[in-house]
Amino acid sequence: MSVRECPPFMLDNALQFSHTLLKEILKTGDVVVDATMGNGHDTLFLSQCVGTTGKVYAFDIQESALVLTEKLLSAAQCPPNYQLFLAGHETVAQHLPPDTMLQGAIFNLGYLPQGDKTVVTQGSTTLVALKSLLACLAVGGRIVLVVYWGHPGGETEKEALLDFCQSLPQKIWHVACYNFINQKNQPPFTLCIERRR
Amino acid sequence: MSVRECPPFMLDNALQFSHTLLKEILKTGDVVVDATMGNGHDTLFLSQCVGTTGKVYAFDIQESALVLTEKLLSAAQCPPNYQLFLAGHETVAQHLPPDTMLQGAIFNLGYLPQGDKTVVTQGSTTLVALKSLLACLAVGGRIVLVVYWGHPGGETEKEALLDFCQSLPQKIWHVACYNFINQKNQPPFTLCIERRR
Repeated sequence: MSVRECPPFMLDNALQFSHTLLKEILKTGDVVVDATMGNGHDTLFLSQCVGTTGKVYAFDIQESALVLTEKLLSAAQCPPNYQLFLAGHETVAQHLPPDTMLQGAIFNLGYLPQGDKTVVTQGSTTLVALKSLLACLAVGGRIVLVVYWGHPGGETEKEALLDFCQSLPQKIWHVACYNFINQKNQPPFTLCIERRR
Repeated sequence: MSVRECPPFMLDNALQFSHTLLKEILKTGDVVVDATMGNGHDTLFLSQCVGTTGKVYAFDIQESALVLTEKLLSAAQCPPNYQLFLAGHETVAQHLPPDTMLQGAIFNLGYLPQGDKTVVTQGSTTLVALKSLLACLAVGGRIVLVVYWGHPGGETEKEALLDFCQSLPQKIWHVACYNFINQKNQPPFTLCIERRR
């Protein structure tokens, strides 16, 4: 009878799973979007995934997010493969170069941890951004969303997002949902939209 | 602008994800259970995961399942690391050696493809089996269930299973659910129960 005191491998949480799903498909040279820059952890992750020949476009409406992200990526000695926009992600279509073909994008919905908790993503602008990104997603590309919805307004955004995702035609898109069903307090969950053709 | 005609990597479907979750944690020498032998594909997979020093206990109530499975594992030249029981999985506790510590188990709920479609798993016996297996699961071990529920009675079994899983205390268990939310016709989904402590 063997007992593992310290399990070597635990189930991915929602955030870890979002990275697992992108790591599976991203490669050097890919073009990707961080739709919610926040503290920059996803921007850093994406910069490392796509390498010197790739490109990361990252968006946030809070100047503090750009400052934190720039600091984080500089400290990690990332190559100059990223561009940070002080702009809402609903404007993504205006900022991407024409004919951009994306392999991936990530959203962290909710508020910026350690930031102003009254500044939260909103269903209406999230959906504009998501539709813009889907329109330039390559076949086999993935958009992942980590949905925090325990804050005021979070449930409305979640419902709008789920409604939209459920309506995506299954011949063109896979939409997978990964969540923990025995947790209290509205645990975050992960959505992944993949273009099949 | 690059186009991938043939994506190298697509999202795991429910069945593939069940294997991904077990592959992450299983190693040579582990003891595991296939609670629904069926055509033997999971038994084969488990036999290969745990190697010559491991052990697979597999259950089915249909003799044809044992015949198919024995044939499959022989053809694949599996080592004699498996034991097939012509018995319902609700009897698992009677068949495992005393003090067995499991690292993993798998269920494929529904009927045996290419088999008698009137023989289906039932919520009541599935739950007895699941509780027995949870009782001997090691810390870090996982029980995965692929839930097919499009057949008559499938929805009842699904609801009983979800009710039970949602009630598992989160301090001891993680319960993750992976499903496709834009598919018609009751697509199968994956549940994974992991012992945290």
